[in-house]
Amino acid sequence: MRYFNFKLIISTALFMAVLFPAFAVVIKWHNVEPGVWKGVVGTPEVYSLLGASGCEPLKEGFDRLPEVNMPEMASSIVCEVVNGKTYLRFPLEKKEQLYGFGLNFQTVHQRGKIFNLHVDHYGGKDTGRNHAPVPFYVSSKGYGVLINSSRYLTVYAGSGARKDSPNAPKAIDRNTDKSWKARPYSDAVSVLVPAEGAEIYVFAGPTPMDVVRRYNLLCGGGTLPPRWGLGFTQRTKTLFTAADVEAEADAFEKNGFPLDFIGLEPGWQSKAYPCTFEWDSSRYPDPEGFVKKMLDRKIRLNLWTNPYVSPESGIYDEIYPYSGSHTVWCGIVPDLATDKGREIWTDKLQKEHVGIGVSGYKIDEVDGYDHYLWPDVATFPSGLDAEQMRQTYGLLVQRSTADLYRARNLRTYGLVRASNAGASSMPYVLYNDYYSHKDFITALINSGFSGVLWTPEVRSSKSAEEWVRRFQSVVFSPMAMINAWSSGTKPWSFPEVADNIKEYAILRMCMMPYWYTEFARYHYDGIPPFRAMSLEPGFNYEDAMSTEIKSANLDDNPYLEAVTKEIKDQYMAGEYLLVAPMFVGETSRKVVLPKGDWYDFYTGEYVGNGQTITAEPGLSGIPVYVRDGAIIPMMEPRLHAPGKGEKVNLEIRHYGKANGAYRLYDDDGETFDYEKGEYSWRDIKVVRQKDGTLKGVISKPGKGKPDTVGKVTWKFMTKS
Amino acid sequence: MRYFNFKLIISTALFMAVLFPAFAVVIKWHNVEPGVWKGVVGTPEVYSLLGASGCEPLKEGFDRLPEVNMPEMASSIVCEVVNGKTYLRFPLEKKEQLYGFGLNFQTVHQRGKIFNLHVDHYGGKDTGRNHAPVPFYVSSKGYGVLINSSRYLTVYAGSGARKDSPNAPKAIDRNTDKSWKARPYSDAVSVLVPAEGAEIYVFAGPTPMDVVRRYNLLCGGGTLPPRWGLGFTQRTKTLFTAADVEAEADAFEKNGFPLDFIGLEPGWQSKAYPCTFEWDSSRYPDPEGFVKKMLDRKIRLNLWTNPYVSPESGIYDEIYPYSGSHTVWCGIVPDLATDKGREIWTDKLQKEHVGIGVSGYKIDEVDGYDHYLWPDVATFPSGLDAEQMRQTYGLLVQRSTADLYRARNLRTYGLVRASNAGASSMPYVLYNDYYSHKDFITALINSGFSGVLWTPEVRSSKSAEEWVRRFQSVVFSPMAMINAWSSGTKPWSFPEVADNIKEYAILRMCMMPYWYTEFARYHYDGIPPFRAMSLEPGFNYEDAMSTEIKSANLDDNPYLEAVTKEIKDQYMAGEYLLVAPMFVGETSRKVVLPKGDWYDFYTGEYVGNGQTITAEPGLSGIPVYVRDGAIIPMMEPRLHAPGKGEKVNLEIRHYGKANGAYRLYDDDGETFDYEKGEYSWRDIKVVRQKDGTLKGVISKPGKGKPDTVGKVTWKFMTKS
Repeated sequence: MRYFNFKLIISTALFMAVLFPAFAVVIKWHNVEPGVWKGVVGTPEVYSLLGASGCEPLKEGFDRLPEVNMPEMASSIVCEVVNGKTYLRFPLEKKEQLYGFGLNFQTVHQRGKIFNLHVDHYGGKDTGRNHAPVPFYVSSKGYGVLINSSRYLTVYAGSGARKDSPNAPKAIDRNTDKSWKARPYSDAVSVLVPAEGAEIYVFAGPTPMDVVRRYNLLCGGGTLPPRWGLGFTQRTKTLFTAADVEAEADAFEKNGFPLDFIGLEPGWQSKAYPCTFEWDSSRYPDPEGFVKKMLDRKIRLNLWTNPYVSPESGIYDEIYPYSGSHTVWCGIVPDLATDKGREIWTDKLQKEHVGIGVSGYKIDEVDGYDHYLWPDVATFPSGLDAEQMRQTYGLLVQRSTADLYRARNLRTYGLVRASNAGASSMPYVLYNDYYSHKDFITALINSGFSGVLWTPEVRSSKSAEEWVRRFQSVVFSPMAMINAWSSGTKPWSFPEVADNIKEYAILRMCMMPYWYTEFARYHYDGIPPFRAMSLEPGFNYEDAMSTEIKSANLDDNPYLEAVTKEIKDQYMAGEYLLVAPMFVGETSRKVVLPKGDWYDFYTGEYVGNGQTITAEPGLSGIPVYVRDGAIIPMMEPRLHAPGKGEKVNLEIRHYGKANGAYRLYDDDGETFDYEKGEYSWRDIKVVRQKDGTLKGVISKPGKGKPDTVGKVTWKFMTKS
Repeated sequence: MRYFNFKLIISTALFMAVLFPAFAVVIKWHNVEPGVWKGVVGTPEVYSLLGASGCEPLKEGFDRLPEVNMPEMASSIVCEVVNGKTYLRFPLEKKEQLYGFGLNFQTVHQRGKIFNLHVDHYGGKDTGRNHAPVPFYVSSKGYGVLINSSRYLTVYAGSGARKDSPNAPKAIDRNTDKSWKARPYSDAVSVLVPAEGAEIYVFAGPTPMDVVRRYNLLCGGGTLPPRWGLGFTQRTKTLFTAADVEAEADAFEKNGFPLDFIGLEPGWQSKAYPCTFEWDSSRYPDPEGFVKKMLDRKIRLNLWTNPYVSPESGIYDEIYPYSGSHTVWCGIVPDLATDKGREIWTDKLQKEHVGIGVSGYKIDEVDGYDHYLWPDVATFPSGLDAEQMRQTYGLLVQRSTADLYRARNLRTYGLVRASNAGASSMPYVLYNDYYSHKDFITALINSGFSGVLWTPEVRSSKSAEEWVRRFQSVVFSPMAMINAWSSGTKPWSFPEVADNIKEYAILRMCMMPYWYTEFARYHYDGIPPFRAMSLEPGFNYEDAMSTEIKSANLDDNPYLEAVTKEIKDQYMAGEYLLVAPMFVGETSRKVVLPKGDWYDFYTGEYVGNGQTITAEPGLSGIPVYVRDGAIIPMMEPRLHAPGKGEKVNLEIRHYGKANGAYRLYDDDGETFDYEKGEYSWRDIKVVRQKDGTLKGVISKPGKGKPDTVGKVTWKFMTKS
């Protein structure tokens, strides 16, 4: 045996060693938006995530953020391009926590994790394979990083130590030293990009929330759903007929249960898996009439589909040349990165659905899993390879269907199973088949770090208790949905809790002015409506803090505490609400309150300040808390979202002792006219008077601006 | 929003479409050995798996295989090199089963699977990440394919259908047609090689077993362990001292329990994780004397280590320049692909261990997992990247340590946690931390398809029953080991079953002439000593067969049945033995017998022919069956393997009614002199005489050839 092969390798090595400095790449930085810098490393590929999403920055949103310098860490980024691969290294300090890296389901703190970011179904572990493996992370130190590559990226988020690092950890004998650690400290986030270059974006803060805002604004600002999208939605059983759907709507009405849109599952199509995109004429003999009838009842329709084209679809032959090399369930895969492929597909949707009044889609099966989707050896006529298509197909289906509605100046709000960077402005909510209530809440938290939305949908339940617990959560989420395509469960299916369920569904509707305004803040300011506690300042949970952290000055750096404790089961909903879901089997739970006075959402009573409290809400309640001075605008109970221009009476709630201020957003709720200035922000103020009482005022909308506020009632929730 | 990016993409696409035929690569084939063809696709990388292993074909072994033409499938292989990646496609027929793709733990039939072949610990699912993800597969149609690439390969083993395939499956409506399948038929094995070329090897049969033989012969022939390697081994607790180890040996002797080698775990080193490779002077004050003392007792020593160098090791400074960029537990990683790095490391082993008589190693932690090993962004002075090093580090540690022994003309036999293609001749057995008895047996079966060995080691048990069941299995495996480094369990730790355990340990020793000969067949003929039932002809299990397969003519194609039913819990051990382990909780089990008459190993009684039988052996037995005409050479009970030249008395057993023939292998059992012709094969024949009785004869060894056979006794196990 000879080591002959190695000889050649070694000469290559010596050659490389000599040339090595030549491989260290100088990053060219461009300040693309205030607080956002783009760095070009090597020769990035033409096709990128942001390019695929087609997002364009919401420039004016940046004006409302503080002026900032480039984060210091940017000067310590090290990049190399070797043998067709790009090696990126970002500095990481000892007391730094990392958030993001996409839609993880089980962890919020990502430091120490290793990911292979790969669009996929969620397989039960946070490996980087999920529905939105967005290569964006936020540091607790107040900066963020995006790698704008449509490749499968391998990320070491503080794992792996270099021998020449000035911060290299020290070796310890495992035989005898109990302080030995299997995972020593690492001072870097390393990313392997399998391409000859990459675009990286660095986002300044100063706070982690500011970082997230800049990211969302770069991606077009958050999506602003139509008002009806924030109402209640039920998905019907697969083989429902038009008559069944109408009967379902009747039942909701009869039960006094709100309903804004109904989802039709595969059976509306003549063939599914793969799909024809054509109505099944036996189950839906008059689609146009049916859709109109439902719209007249103020109930919109959302159609399930996957994008894979059945040989029996009218577009099969035409789209065939613009489809990928491999089939999915024997259907061809439209290459949505070709103009023609996209046009043929969306023209079909336009003709069959959008044109007759269908309000949106649930686009399934664009995530994974590997056994179903095109393999990594597939090719596409656009020239994209299978990997690029896998990473961006969710973006492409969102973008192309969203464009259909935009062309009609109508907003949509639907469901999709895959997304990626650049999707903040996409009118889609992610969902999946996984069904862990706890992990659904963690995903909701993580969605806020990745510019995506997530619904902790309710499907079926083993018990009334589970039904209530899941339902209470989904009411405080981006889409209040019962996904009954398989189970056929109705909101009132568990009679012993039907009243409570109805109460929460109505609460959802009453809160619509708040939800809608919070989505407007997502759109205009990039603030995620549902997000992690670690984006909120003012933590002070003594219970869990280490001595080291305790001694730190939290007034100087209020985020420091969030670094030390992972909160995976409570979240912020809009500006003021802290939601702490109960899970089946629990009769009480701990809730971590940030600094500042907090009040019970339902009673207005004081509950604590910067401490961990125990909530015991009983079966009927989900713990929700409100910041001091909070203002929550509510509307009167309704079964459907207010239509365009429809006036609603408001009950404006104030909580706590501090004065309050809120800006209520308004527009027509259905079109894109807000982009032409057709919107208003009305100032709401609650001020304590000299006599000690509180008084509220609401400003008028600007002249000619939308004005849908009817009568206003004030409710001061906290007794003085 | 504009689709501006796509424009450029589409022009690229059109450009590519025009040029497309230019990307289809013509494979250049070379007939490298009889029945083995090497195909060169694109520009393969210099560094490959076979290159890293340093294997050289055992040429004379091919002479004993049938002459064959190149498999027809080879002409249907399609290859493309696009954008730095190589796409390989191998044809796959409808009634074809695939075996191999490395050391899978839960499945034997690999058709339909998707793998990312990646050296790693075993994470509980057959994803391609395991200790030996060998990119070699065997078809039930009697051919094999190896992709000789040191990259992470993505394999679609009959998953993913092309739209232009002549065998494309037909679309079905899932809404209404119950025959809808989530995974439609695919007519190809597709492999994505992330490099600009690859070497592929095609192996002819005609039978699957012939394919496996050709693979092993190409890789140097199977390893031939020293005789002592097939004896019994116990691994001692981590912090054992020299005195503790001697006491352990005393206890084995006192209990009359066989023992050939003892494994010392991390505490023998002065520092471990990372390692010094130096003896701890408090626990081992006189290593040389200790090793010699043990050798004098006929007990060899095997040393645990991992290759990561502690800053406190004497070689740290010298090897530093020849180590990778990243540390493992703060130890540096020797670049064993550099001459210098390898020399410094092996010189240290030579000086500290091999030179004073240590007989082998257990090389740990060279597989994964990701949080412990160097990251994929690591670099190495040899110029290999982290991926190449990960895929081959197991090969490199095996090769470099094996060479140490070869240089002293001494065989070794040890343990290693990672391997890959080209390892057949490596004197190492794979092991891991996973501990599913059933999956350990499946891994043993799969090892036979991948040119590696696997031990279903016994560690500890929750009950005497479990202890017996695991122990009975390991006795019929490549290494009969109790790995008590953590538990400290002894063979007699469960007194209620101690006698049975001892009986099986002694059986293992008595069978040594059979085991040793079967390993010689592995070496000279490439026949895996432990292997799947699907490599055996003559299946006939009516119970599980589909109508379609039932109607086939099994005499024409006896392998056809193995295609239809996956057998994961029984295996062949050597030429004649069928082993069907019992698992904890079982009182009976089904055993599938191939065609032909089979007999009970213990009693010689007839049990069946080509059918599924039920075994009920009680706690004390593991079902083992023997083919008609089988000859099993046994020796007298011993506590240690016979030494060089030591004569042993044989009891030669014959089973069943047919005449029998066997060739008994002999050599010095310790050195490589067999490579110079210092070995013998003695013909054993049992022939039925005219009077109906059986008579056995054994030939003499050739003149001057090894002859260690003493007195021979014949035992005809089956009563006529």
